[in-house]
Amino acid sequence: MPKQIMQAEPGRGNYFEDFYLGQVFKHATPRTVTDGDGALYIALTGSRHILHSAQPVAHALGYRDRTVDDLLAFHIAFGKTVPDISVNAVANLGYADARFLLPVYPGDTLSTSSTVIGLKQNSSGNNGVVYVHSVAHNQNRQAVLEWKRWVMVHKQDLARPAPVTVIPELPAVVPVERLQIPEFLDGRQFETALTGGQKLWDDYAPGERINHPAGMTVDDSDHTLATKLYQNNARLHFDEQMMKATPFGRRLMYGGHVISICRSLSYDGLENALGIAAINAGTHSNPSFGGDTFTTWTEVLERWELPGRKDLGALRLRMVGVKNLPSRELPHRHVEQNGKQVYHTNVVLDLDYTVFMPRR
Amino acid sequence: MPKQIMQAEPGRGNYFEDFYLGQVFKHATPRTVTDGDGALYIALTGSRHILHSAQPVAHALGYRDRTVDDLLAFHIAFGKTVPDISVNAVANLGYADARFLLPVYPGDTLSTSSTVIGLKQNSSGNNGVVYVHSVAHNQNRQAVLEWKRWVMVHKQDLARPAPVTVIPELPAVVPVERLQIPEFLDGRQFETALTGGQKLWDDYAPGERINHPAGMTVDDSDHTLATKLYQNNARLHFDEQMMKATPFGRRLMYGGHVISICRSLSYDGLENALGIAAINAGTHSNPSFGGDTFTTWTEVLERWELPGRKDLGALRLRMVGVKNLPSRELPHRHVEQNGKQVYHTNVVLDLDYTVFMPRR
Amino acid sequence: MPKQIMQAEPGRGNYFEDFYLGQVFKHATPRTVTDGDGALYIALTGSRHILHSAQPVAHALGYRDRTVDDLLAFHIAFGKTVPDISVNAVANLGYADARFLLPVYPGDTLSTSSTVIGLKQNSSGNNGVVYVHSVAHNQNRQAVLEWKRWVMVHKQDLARPAPVTVIPELPAVVPVERLQIPEFLDGRQFETALTGGQKLWDDYAPGERINHPAGMTVDDSDHTLATKLYQNNARLHFDEQMMKATPFGRRLMYGGHVISICRSLSYDGLENALGIAAINAGTHSNPSFGGDTFTTWTEVLERWELPGRKDLGALRLRMVGVKNLPSRELPHRHVEQNGKQVYHTNVVLDLDYTVFMPRR
Repeated sequence: MPKQIMQAEPGRGNYFEDFYLGQVFKHATPRTVTDGDGALYIALTGSRHILHSAQPVAHALGYRDRTVDDLLAFHIAFGKTVPDISVNAVANLGYADARFLLPVYPGDTLSTSSTVIGLKQNSSGNNGVVYVHSVAHNQNRQAVLEWKRWVMVHKQDLARPAPVTVIPELPAVVPVERLQIPEFLDGRQFETALTGGQKLWDDYAPGERINHPAGMTVDDSDHTLATKLYQNNARLHFDEQMMKATPFGRRLMYGGHVISICRSLSYDGLENALGIAAINAGTHSNPSFGGDTFTTWTEVLERWELPGRKDLGALRLRMVGVKNLPSRELPHRHVEQNGKQVYHTNVVLDLDYTVFMPRR
Repeated sequence: MPKQIMQAEPGRGNYFEDFYLGQVFKHATPRTVTDGDGALYIALTGSRHILHSAQPVAHALGYRDRTVDDLLAFHIAFGKTVPDISVNAVANLGYADARFLLPVYPGDTLSTSSTVIGLKQNSSGNNGVVYVHSVAHNQNRQAVLEWKRWVMVHKQDLARPAPVTVIPELPAVVPVERLQIPEFLDGRQFETALTGGQKLWDDYAPGERINHPAGMTVDDSDHTLATKLYQNNARLHFDEQMMKATPFGRRLMYGGHVISICRSLSYDGLENALGIAAINAGTHSNPSFGGDTFTTWTEVLERWELPGRKDLGALRLRMVGVKNLPSRELPHRHVEQNGKQVYHTNVVLDLDYTVFMPRR
Repeated sequence: MPKQIMQAEPGRGNYFEDFYLGQVFKHATPRTVTDGDGALYIALTGSRHILHSAQPVAHALGYRDRTVDDLLAFHIAFGKTVPDISVNAVANLGYADARFLLPVYPGDTLSTSSTVIGLKQNSSGNNGVVYVHSVAHNQNRQAVLEWKRWVMVHKQDLARPAPVTVIPELPAVVPVERLQIPEFLDGRQFETALTGGQKLWDDYAPGERINHPAGMTVDDSDHTLATKLYQNNARLHFDEQMMKATPFGRRLMYGGHVISICRSLSYDGLENALGIAAINAGTHSNPSFGGDTFTTWTEVLERWELPGRKDLGALRLRMVGVKNLPSRELPHRHVEQNGKQVYHTNVVLDLDYTVFMPRR
């Protein structure tokens, strides 16, 4: 046996004390997204959204090709940030100001970079919150999507002084003027027969609640295949042995995949939501595990005209993901607990996002 | 909390009273089929059929490219019909007169339409049988495959009068004159070394039974991934919570995927069956579930010359799918029960179909 | 019921007495490898290796396109040999002298042929060892990879005389002069920011041990999907019913897929290992099953300069796969048992292989 020299811890990532304001990460392993990823995404979610499903339809609406599903692009771009930002995370606390800037097409290659825009050490001194602004570019150096998120990260060297607290200003919602809807997209070319949904932008009313009828059970193989496809290497999703020693007791489902499942389940009732323009806010309110069955409801929050367009409008939606209960049986997201409103234990997702949809 | 207006039931589908004779459905969500779907289909079935596996071989035989597996194309085209035809089905009763008309290539986009060709309310008045003729077209408006099926569908508004009973005439078998074998396909260019099977059309005899040696266990993730890939959204395949309350007690495997598994298992012994020309009749004789192990036998029913061709012939086959027993241990599909011949409880599939195969 | 004529056993394969020295097999079912296979491979392994992940990066380094993962190509080429060589195998005993000769690109079609280079009947007379040399070619008849392996195969007709024993000379290691590193590959164009790993060839020292931090649980659906993707039809990986009657009691994981999982886990710490040049030796030291969690360590065995090149060097590595224990908790591969060194029961893989890596 040769003398063993142990290598300095590989894949160590960054701890709270390693981050500083203005720090820039160019995340590793750019990723070419292909028709293969698109097929797998359909197999993993059952997605039927038309722009990702049918090349001739996308083409007739002005797109160069079918587009890569917005959330598939998001998860792949997000996965790139994990080794630098969140491999030592205690929890992913929230998302804000996510904007989908340009379509991603099969064959495009995504790279992600992030900038630290806020830091706050927790009172315990054992961890702190890191705020990052991440941007994904395609191979032509065009920004295709961006988002902000904040994560609680472990501190390893507790002796290091706390940084100055900086909490960035985050918009509660991406306003309509900041939505990037493709100019070439011609909503007048759209036919509802293609999606099977009769309702267009004009037919939704703020306050409306849609109980999407479908439910989907997600097994361990499903969510781990998805998360590996996204090249997200956060260990708590994959290592059953390691997770047995935690309070979870087993592999935790990647919250982003829960968003994808719920978005796919929301097809019936929102068939003509062509694409996602923004994610305004998102909370993974309870953990999900292999074997959980998901159902979804959507609340219509706002209906916006898009500046200068008569063919398309925007809907701000609240998508609520529920596990192991039909969503229609749950009247509210919250329940009262000790005088406080807390999420119902079966509510796993509360996502505020904006779609664009053809008008009458 | 905003005032909630509940949306009329989305994804409701059609009940028995909603169907009428001559009714035409243009089903939603056309689907571009890609190399990604082809790779997934291989991963889900273990298929080794040469036309779908090897581009240069397909090309040498006259095809433009590898073809999309016949059954993959069928399942995708079939999946499109579910939201309109069978989302409220009690049972899928049978198939007939399915014909594969043109090859489907990676990059093609499939759309399906259906016409109601028969209706019969059951004596209970609670449901009825709907007969449909479905046709799938590619992006060039060419019909690539068609089939007839009949499903038992729930009636919701029991007060509605029964329709006039019309039962369409369905052929017991697609006759040889109606098989569409590609004219460009040159069977003389075929080499058995490519498939590893020495037997050609001339070497099979009606009455022959082939016990295919392989067995395959299909887990819940496998069949749900497949069925989502086919964009078949029938809920009983996906929602474990909902299914727990049914006599099945769990998610039911999509019967079409059982056909695919058995067809793949039948490779050893039928290596040179280049493609499927027709499905004459099909019965899902017992339900299948995640964890079931499938084996298969094939009976050669007929050997047909193809008009005007010396390079290729057709074989009419009966493929029997068995669960949780080696097929060779089962002498017959049927057993006697109370003086009646019924399917053995381990027989899950009885499919009468026609393939084309090179001749000596 | 028609008179049944049973077909001679299909998919029978070859038994020990069917092999003879110099025998050549042209294995069936060539396979076109596509972007779909690439996406699935990422989903099945979590691979982040740059040449397979990012088209523009591969292109900048001189490749025509992203390459197909070396091990994916290997498994597909290997799977072709199963029906002729090892469908009746008792055990896959070892690999040697595997060389990766040319890049495989999406769209390439692989065919494999094998030559019997050695035979040795075991003293029991019930089985024997078959040594084969296998070569995979692309559609342009270029050899892209080759390997030698030896398998123990059942004898069926025990009356047949034993063949003359011939044991081929197998190199313990593929020497540096026989490594085929693409001439066009320009290591000076490489940037470590792309992979997230700072260490280059110069920074590794023989004797060094790298405990890769990640662990991955592999479920039954994962390994069976992978093995079907490889079109490897060895029944013991798929047929739970059949395996219940064996001492294993359940489906056995394909050892090649364990190599893939470990290789993917070894990314953190070996980020800049661009590709595999050779597999010198390999042992599947214990069986693996669905539900096992894998971790990996790597020992650096040798660091070689490549003749005539200053941009790239080779590292000979020993990758050890461990199940259900963090690899860092295991100091040695072996334990003493009755005075003999045997593999620790949790060590499932011992692979000696050679990679190429950019130099400083």
